[in-house]
Amino acid sequence: MHESTTRHDWRALCRALEARWHNEIPISAAMGITVDGFDGTRLDLRAALAPNVNVHGTAFAGSLFSLASLCGWGLVHLQMQRRELAGAIVFVEGNIRCLKPVHDDVRARCVWSEAADAALATLATSGKARFRLPTRLHCGEDVAAEFSGEYAVRLPP
Amino acid sequence: MHESTTRHDWRALCRALEARWHNEIPISAAMGITVDGFDGTRLDLRAALAPNVNVHGTAFAGSLFSLASLCGWGLVHLQMQRRELAGAIVFVEGNIRCLKPVHDDVRARCVWSEAADAALATLATSGKARFRLPTRLHCGEDVAAEFSGEYAVRLPP
Repeated sequence: MHESTTRHDWRALCRALEARWHNEIPISAAMGITVDGFDGTRLDLRAALAPNVNVHGTAFAGSLFSLASLCGWGLVHLQMQRRELAGAIVFVEGNIRCLKPVHDDVRARCVWSEAADAALATLATSGKARFRLPTRLHCGEDVAAEFSGEYAVRLPP
Repeated sequence: MHESTTRHDWRALCRALEARWHNEIPISAAMGITVDGFDGTRLDLRAALAPNVNVHGTAFAGSLFSLASLCGWGLVHLQMQRRELAGAIVFVEGNIRCLKPVHDDVRARCVWSEAADAALATLATSGKARFRLPTRLHCGEDVAAEFSGEYAVRLPP
């Protein structure tokens, strides 16, 4: 596939993912989550501070967790779409450690790994797999939080 | 203090906590979080499914995490209020494990422990402490998820 066509397709996939979240997960719309980019390996999301603020005037931990958990979910979803695999992606378990208070927009980045690629191969052959994906949250130059999530996927019979 | 007066005060504290969250944490208002009750030992919160739904028509993991993390935060806040301690309660770290899909209203319950009481005594004497509090999420008769959160508190100098 020609590079520019691929880029175009990725932009369309990102727009479709964002629209699906806003339509089907009302809290993602309330948070104002946007899909910033996907390059085939990493997925970037963003949310403004104002709708996600807490009693301290910084980002609410629940919003940070939501953004990070969707980043991992979205990356599994996009990698499955690239390989024309359709199945339910279910969040199983997650951990977040907040490192610095977030005083501005927050960005989430999840990067695809060799282990995730191996899980995707297992999914294609056995019909089910689990993905463990770390997501890092940034505010400006700072790493604001570290998240790790586990997602279970099962293909339709 | 007379029992009925105490109960009345707790109801007022619960209403004030709910109002503060809705005013200062817009996502808690979007989620429709309500404070169901506090009896001096345990705090109960609730959220309806509709505003917290995900792509599968069940509760969004991010909403479950937000509800659970606020339950622990709220219980520390109420216990500090009872002892007339005022200080910032900051979420540090949390983990959630989803056990069953949530098809209806979800309830969160956080129960005060001896360890938390010891941390509160440390807070009163040293001016800072960390609280580790588990919160359980219920849907109907089912335990839907298990959460554990850590909160750092520092009293003003």
